[in-house]
Order: sequence, then structure tokens, then C-alpha cells
Amino acid sequence: MITSLSYAVQTAKTPLAPFSFSRRATGPRDVAIVITYCGVCHSDVHTARGEWQGTKYPCVPGHEIVGTVTEVGSEVSRFKVGDTVGVGCMVDSCQQCASCAEGLEQYCQKGFTGTYNGKTADAPGHTLGGYSNHIVVTEKFVLKVTHPAAQLAAVAPLLCAGITTWSPLKHWKVGPGQKVGIVGIGGLGHMGIKLAHALGARVVAFTTSEGKRKDALDLGADEVVVSKNRDEMKAHTASFDFILNTVAASHNLDAFTTLLKRDGAMCLCGVPEHPHPSPNIGALIFQRRTITGSLIGGIAETQEMLDFCAKHHIVSEIEMIPIQEINEAYDRMVRSDVKYRFVIDMASLRTS
Amino acid sequence: MITSLSYAVQTAKTPLAPFSFSRRATGPRDVAIVITYCGVCHSDVHTARGEWQGTKYPCVPGHEIVGTVTEVGSEVSRFKVGDTVGVGCMVDSCQQCASCAEGLEQYCQKGFTGTYNGKTADAPGHTLGGYSNHIVVTEKFVLKVTHPAAQLAAVAPLLCAGITTWSPLKHWKVGPGQKVGIVGIGGLGHMGIKLAHALGARVVAFTTSEGKRKDALDLGADEVVVSKNRDEMKAHTASFDFILNTVAASHNLDAFTTLLKRDGAMCLCGVPEHPHPSPNIGALIFQRRTITGSLIGGIAETQEMLDFCAKHHIVSEIEMIPIQEINEAYDRMVRSDVKYRFVIDMASLRTS
Repeated sequence: MITSLSYAVQTAKTPLAPFSFSRRATGPRDVAIVITYCGVCHSDVHTARGEWQGTKYPCVPGHEIVGTVTEVGSEVSRFKVGDTVGVGCMVDSCQQCASCAEGLEQYCQKGFTGTYNGKTADAPGHTLGGYSNHIVVTEKFVLKVTHPAAQLAAVAPLLCAGITTWSPLKHWKVGPGQKVGIVGIGGLGHMGIKLAHALGARVVAFTTSEGKRKDALDLGADEVVVSKNRDEMKAHTASFDFILNTVAASHNLDAFTTLLKRDGAMCLCGVPEHPHPSPNIGALIFQRRTITGSLIGGIAETQEMLDFCAKHHIVSEIEMIPIQEINEAYDRMVRSDVKYRFVIDMASLRTS
Repeated sequence: MITSLSYAVQTAKTPLAPFSFSRRATGPRDVAIVITYCGVCHSDVHTARGEWQGTKYPCVPGHEIVGTVTEVGSEVSRFKVGDTVGVGCMVDSCQQCASCAEGLEQYCQKGFTGTYNGKTADAPGHTLGGYSNHIVVTEKFVLKVTHPAAQLAAVAPLLCAGITTWSPLKHWKVGPGQKVGIVGIGGLGHMGIKLAHALGARVVAFTTSEGKRKDALDLGADEVVVSKNRDEMKAHTASFDFILNTVAASHNLDAFTTLLKRDGAMCLCGVPEHPHPSPNIGALIFQRRTITGSLIGGIAETQEMLDFCAKHHIVSEIEMIPIQEINEAYDRMVRSDVKYRFVIDMASLRTS
């Protein structure tokens, strides 16, 4: 047992504040990691504030973790002390169902174990996440990070925002010769633009903000459409092979499904708090279009994504903060006032 | 020009009644057909009664046509006088777009020409359908029918109800080892059960009517679920590879999407008059499920379906009527009082 320092919320109504707890000792298959950076995801805010059902307190959020291996169990073969590693949204799964067998642990039929707020045998009965100075994770769920040291903070968001956009782009075979839309230019969307561009597709970014036009082009979009502009939208009717819709807020899906070609698919990666207006089924039927969804990504494809990003010099756009500023960062995220991901410099935790 | 006898509606509020008009003379690429049977589709009712936008009057419905070739144009090579043929929902398309090039004329980018109510150079400027004693159709849109003569009436509904279910079953690769749901046991659904069964899938039929349980088993379903029974539904959670949903009436899609396995798809083939309740996006995201749609089918796949049905002795379940009973048949269809398709014996037209 090792004492971890962290920032935790004790109730849905209280801010994040310093909190100490014990991690399990490093077991034979475990990797112990000193956390150097942790990205800040919208899920952290929803969970900490109890906006989704079922938050267990105390809650230590954080599932975009980069760190250094400090200890490995006797059966660990893929990692050694000193390795730079990542941990994403999952720290375990049943490893027996069809989804786990296919490397799609995110669809584990028994439910994967989330990096925080997941059920575990460890005290206090639920997992505690990355806003802490160290973590112990079973080898299978630890990722190798090969980016240069100077980029490690900006690698952290790849572990959630990166894989959440990579997995659907790869599953629906986005590549050269295709026209791909990315809806929303936030934490997820900005990664979607970078990844779809690097995969060789023609990328059109959709935003409601005229002010994000230049940014989206800088991120790698070939074209930017302000979705409130009907004429701009109409010019793209029935022209997309694939649209990755990263906007969780309730919105009119038909505005985008009608931009798909025959047999095109729009993949949603956010669950709206209030339902979207009911989609027009005719827009699907008359061109055999598809609405689908995708959840984070499996461990094997997360490694594939990290390796791809290292090779293509891709990282997230980040704003680094000391952990003492996390509550303000939450408020700014809710206002979409971040380009595009906060990352906590975990060295700041030692100075609390 | 040849005079055709038919039954037509002159306004949205008047019943079908005898009507004479002229068809174009048989051109070099045309096939002239004496119609022996014509199925009665729900689309006929909606169009005749002006329940969809844009009905042009006079309207002669009918797009499930079986007949005999009486004349062929000089350039026609695939048909000769005396051949038994079929005509479905389309009589023309642009023949130049990507969809037409792929044999998917139903998704023609310029819009296919419907067998009735479609735009045409022929008088009166819109196509007039199969509730008539003959029709002239360009060779490309004429299908070969090889079923035995005694089955021809029951072949007619294959031209719409058959292909509308065949096309998605084939597109989503339904076959042996798969568990497939068919929602709704009506004109479309009863064909869906027969075809999915013949394709080798395990077929589960969903109905709201306890009374249709035995019928669905007789049609080829391996199991029948009364969808109002929550426990029956729950037993099938996350177990289907594919669900073909033939119900156009507004209903709760989540009841069926949650029955899909990871990566499963539900295909809708009816546009609801009133929107379905907005589907639960979480049910898609958490198992990468898909909601999609499909429209009738292309000419090549219609021929494939007809040939498959002839080989497997598949026809529609029908109730034959003389054309003089068509208005009553419409009222009965609206009440779902037909097992499972009315087919007009066109010989009755001569006795009007």
C-alpha cells in the first residue's frame, strides 16, 4: 500500500480539494506509475459534479494519464522501471467475453472498469483516477508512449480525446480519397481534425462559431463550414463519406445526415443530456444513410493511435495548469473557454 | 398510342373508378406488357389519397406488376412476345450517376422515375401505374419472371414488398449463423421473414399482436416475440446481428436497438408520418450500434431476388380481388385487415 496524494471531490456540491488515500501494492501483473501529466475531460466534470447518475464519492477524476513506471510486478514483461507510459479511460475488463477477445475492451459485455468511478476490489470499492501523483494498473491496460519528452503533456489528451476520435475514424475506414466532416471543434473535434487529416482524408470542420474558422484550418481542416449558415451547409449536400459528430449538446442531426452521400455514416460520440430532435428517417432511407455511435477505443487500437501520432508528430493542443487551478479550469471548460484541452502538470501536486 | 383501361383517382377525396388514357406507342427500347396481376401497396393508398405531398391527378396507382409481353421495340434484346415479366416501383432513372452505374437506380442522384406519379415526357406528364390493363416500359426496368404460371398472382408483391426487404437483408449480409429480427408482420414483414429464413438466418419476428404468433411461425420465423411483453423482449437483449424494422408508424426504436449486439444494425424501411420518439444515442454509442434505412432495391438485385424466390419456391401470401373491390381493399389495408397483400386480378378490368 502506498499513500497517494490527489485532488478529489467529496460531494457533488463541493470543489476539488487535496485528498490522500492508499493505492494497492504493486501486484505480480501490475505496473506502478508516477503520474506526470493528466488531461481534463468533460467526463471528469460531469462525474465530479454528479451530473451523471452514480458518482461514488470521494471521486478522484482523470483518465488522460501520462507518467513514468516506478515498479513492475514479477509477471510483467512489456514494461520496465523508467518507461514512459499512458493510461486511458479503462484499467480493467472481464478479458473473457467476445469483445475483450477482439481487443474491444470498451464494449466488454460485463462492462469495463473505468479509470475512476469504476467498480474494484481495492478500497474504497471504486477506482480513483489520474488527478493524483501515482497509480497502479494491470499491465494489459498500460500503453507505451514514444513521443519526445517535451511533448508528453500534450500526449495526455490522446488517451481519451485522441482514441475517442481515432477509433471511429479507423472503424469506418477513413482514408485518402474520402471527404470527412468533423462536427464541433473542441477537445474531441480538434483531435478528429488532426487525425482525419493525417489519415489522408479531405477534412471539413463544422462549427457554430465564425471565430473558430482560422483555428480549424490551422488544425488541418481543408475547409470550415459555419453550420448556422444555410447556404454554406447546402453546398455540401450529399457529399460526405463519413461525419464524426463530437457535439454532445442536443442539436438537429438532419442538418448533417443530409450532407452524407449514399451509404455514408454519421458517428456520434457524445450522449446528449437532452435528446436530439428526432432524426428524419426519410433522410436515412432515401440514401441508405446511417447514424451510429462509438465509445472511446480498445487497448490495441489505443496503442496503434499513440504510435501513429508519434510517427506523425501529432499531439493535442493544450493549456497547462497547476492542479490548484482545477476548479477554475472546470468552469472555463463548461464555458468552452479552452483551446483545446487542459492538462494538469502533476508536479504541482507536490507543492500543495 | 394505345388506349389503356385503368382504375384511377381524380382527386384526393374521390374513390378509385374506371378511367381510360393513352400509353405511349412502343419505342425501340420499349417492352409493351399486358398486365395480369397488380399488388396493392400501402404507398398506393397514401399517394391516391394525397397523404404524401405531391400527388398528381389523375393518379393510377400500382407498382407490383406481373404480365405478359405483347410487343418489343427494335432494339430490345432480352425479351420477346409471350414472356412473363414483372415491373416494380421504378420505370426509369438517369442511367448516368454513380448510383445508376452501380445498379442502385433506387438511389439515382437525379431521382428515379416512379412507376406512378413520376415525372415523364409522356402525357399527362406523370407516370400512370399498374391498376391498368397494359403498360409500356423501357427494357432496362423490366424483370424476368420464372415462377410457375399458377403462382404469378403471388409473385406480384415481390416487386415491391419482396425487394424492399431483400435489398437490406442482402446489403447487410444476412445469412447462416446470424440472428435476425423482423419487426412488423405485414406486407413487408411477412416477406422479410420468408426471405431471411431462406437466406439461412435464425429469424425472430416481432409483433404487437398475440394473434399473429402462429402465423409468423408458419411463415418461417424460428421464434415470435410480442413486443409489448417486456420480459420476452428483455430475454433478447444485445443478441441480434440485424433487425429489419418494417413498421412505419411512430414507435419506440430503443426497444429494438437495445436488442442489437455490438456492431449490430437496425434498418428502417418505412418513413413515419409522425416522428419516432428520439432514439437513445447512448444505446448506439455503448455498443457501436447503427440505425439505418433502405429504399426498395435496384433492378439487378430485384432480378436476383426474383430468381432466388423462384428457386426457393417463395411467393407472397395474398388475397386476390377483382379491381371493383379496390376501394374496400384500401379501407381494409388501413385497418391491417389483410394477410398479407391484396393482388388485383386484372382480368376483372375487362368486365368493368
